[in-house]
Amino acid sequence: MHKLMLVDHDPDRSASLEAALLAAGYAHIIRVGQHDNLLNAVRTHQPDIILIDMQSPDRDTLESLRNVSREMPKPIVFFAEQSDLETTRAAISAGVSAYIVDDLPGKRLKSVLEVAIARFQDHQKLREELEDYKGRLQDRKDVDKAKGILMQHRNLSEEEAYQLLRKMAMDRNMKIGEAARNFVAAMALLGGKP
Amino acid sequence: MHKLMLVDHDPDRSASLEAALLAAGYAHIIRVGQHDNLLNAVRTHQPDIILIDMQSPDRDTLESLRNVSREMPKPIVFFAEQSDLETTRAAISAGVSAYIVDDLPGKRLKSVLEVAIARFQDHQKLREELEDYKGRLQDRKDVDKAKGILMQHRNLSEEEAYQLLRKMAMDRNMKIGEAARNFVAAMALLGGKP
Repeated sequence: MHKLMLVDHDPDRSASLEAALLAAGYAHIIRVGQHDNLLNAVRTHQPDIILIDMQSPDRDTLESLRNVSREMPKPIVFFAEQSDLETTRAAISAGVSAYIVDDLPGKRLKSVLEVAIARFQDHQKLREELEDYKGRLQDRKDVDKAKGILMQHRNLSEEEAYQLLRKMAMDRNMKIGEAARNFVAAMALLGGKP
Repeated sequence: MHKLMLVDHDPDRSASLEAALLAAGYAHIIRVGQHDNLLNAVRTHQPDIILIDMQSPDRDTLESLRNVSREMPKPIVFFAEQSDLETTRAAISAGVSAYIVDDLPGKRLKSVLEVAIARFQDHQKLREELEDYKGRLQDRKDVDKAKGILMQHRNLSEEEAYQLLRKMAMDRNMKIGEAARNFVAAMALLGGKP
């Protein structure tokens, strides 16, 4: 069963949400106070999903959600009593997986949580793919830069420079992009390349 | 006001959804039949959002949603009467922005649609960023390949090869990646490079 983290902004609302969660079969619920550091709490408890129930997401809450989404992303379900378009957009872009306005869906709670988790996983997959491509592009740039320095300084062909970098990476048990970055940084230190 | 497309799978359900939409102030509603080609309908009518209300997404529906998401992505709100975890995941990965089980949220319809649109835009931004990085990586690979051929065949330095490619691209009013791809393809045709 999922481990839930419930952020307590309003004792009444939290209590009724907790009751609904228990009724839906979620027994493992961690409560954190609204003034606790959410990111630290997430790091400590490693919940499967975070639930927040409050009037409307305020600036501090959005900021702490953004921190969690960046550092330790988790599915987030937000129950808001009211919302305008701008707040809705801000909540979504802060990483909220399900944003539910004016409804505490009692018997549908389970499906709301499952949809939020599925959406979070879908989003994470896309984010990871993006990070992968960013990394590959950066590696290629750094390898090119390192190759250029080697070709110029040691009068090597492109292929020879590449093989040298590759060997350096293998000897040091690194990825070639990392080896290239280290090499470029070392050369910059020596003034070998502006 | 948003232009809505309502996919009619079940006349009763569609009628009550349409009534709720009209009550929420959405006047511009296009109905399409469940056997119409959804992608063609989307191309023709260019709705701002697509709504589907059916028992549970079947294989054909998921397939046509995947087509729309790939070819002409739009926010999609799916109202399902019931769902299991696997179907939920399939719907999300087919590009559904809001997947709502067992609930036709009358007065909350407007916020459901706004959340779906906000989520869709957030997702599109990420997808576009991913496409951009994919393109940049591919460009870099193709430019490297073209440079390599030029360096070898015309005995140029890397910088000279790059400047030649850049000039070729500018002369033909192309991006350098495109010019590089054309050049590599032309050389392959001549047997200049395997």
